[in-house]
Amino acid sequence: MIDPATASTAMLDAAIRRAVENVAAGGGPFAAVVARGEQVVAHGVNRVTRDLDPTAHAEVVAIRAACQAVGRFSLAGCVLVSSCEPCPLCLAASLWARLDAVVYAADRHDAARAGFDDLAFYDLFGAPRDQWSLPVGQVAVASAGAPFDAWLAKSDRVDY
Amino acid sequence: MIDPATASTAMLDAAIRRAVENVAAGGGPFAAVVARGEQVVAHGVNRVTRDLDPTAHAEVVAIRAACQAVGRFSLAGCVLVSSCEPCPLCLAASLWARLDAVVYAADRHDAARAGFDDLAFYDLFGAPRDQWSLPVGQVAVASAGAPFDAWLAKSDRVDY
Repeated sequence: MIDPATASTAMLDAAIRRAVENVAAGGGPFAAVVARGEQVVAHGVNRVTRDLDPTAHAEVVAIRAACQAVGRFSLAGCVLVSSCEPCPLCLAASLWARLDAVVYAADRHDAARAGFDDLAFYDLFGAPRDQWSLPVGQVAVASAGAPFDAWLAKSDRVDY
Repeated sequence: MIDPATASTAMLDAAIRRAVENVAAGGGPFAAVVARGEQVVAHGVNRVTRDLDPTAHAEVVAIRAACQAVGRFSLAGCVLVSSCEPCPLCLAASLWARLDAVVYAADRHDAARAGFDDLAFYDLFGAPRDQWSLPVGQVAVASAGAPFDAWLAKSDRVDY
């Protein structure tokens, strides 16, 4: 448990209310907010089925909106506040967004009871790939390194 | 190694070429395609810095575009072909998209040599959360289960 004083319980309460409202609106039962201190940078609700986008999880939607709001691809200095534990997709998005911290209310087990695969996918990430239901494999291609050679040779590249 | 016969080496070659081109265009050195058999459903290139979107990895871009192309939030029956091993974000997106398989050319170690955090983030996913550089924690909120109660009570919900 992170010290609740470091999270905004009011923001968690608000996210939970928006998650409930999102169900009535035809979306999934998830909502999130990106905050800087007490200031809300952007909201997000789950829009997977409404937008036909399997990546439109509340946290991803909030992260994308927050980056547009601040005009940067980094959210360093910001915190993600989510109605439910971010799944591996959303946690990886949080890492790439360079967020300072992630806090949540419900967890992967609560989501599993409601029929969602967050827990199952966390279990997959903890298992060897040859035990995955999704086959994931490397194919040898001679030119595989060419994009990275081009990247390293580009002196004005924008790192992230 | 997945049997290369199950992947399209031509598609991998093309993705690698697009990844090289994307570097010249100011993007990251990654490209991907969603395919159904020999048919390309959608392409994607890395647009993180150009779109100010830390989730705009080539695979995520391809998955989102493919879902729009087919008009569904599931890509069951499709394969993701990527110039580089999908990072945890992209692999989780592949799971949520219900793809049949994922094949790639370069891997997380190649990406690390070019300065990308794919390997570092895979290592985090394999480590206990209290060892993460990103603090991730649950906060007790009494109403945490309310969104899932609303979800389970909604008889016309669209599961995913």
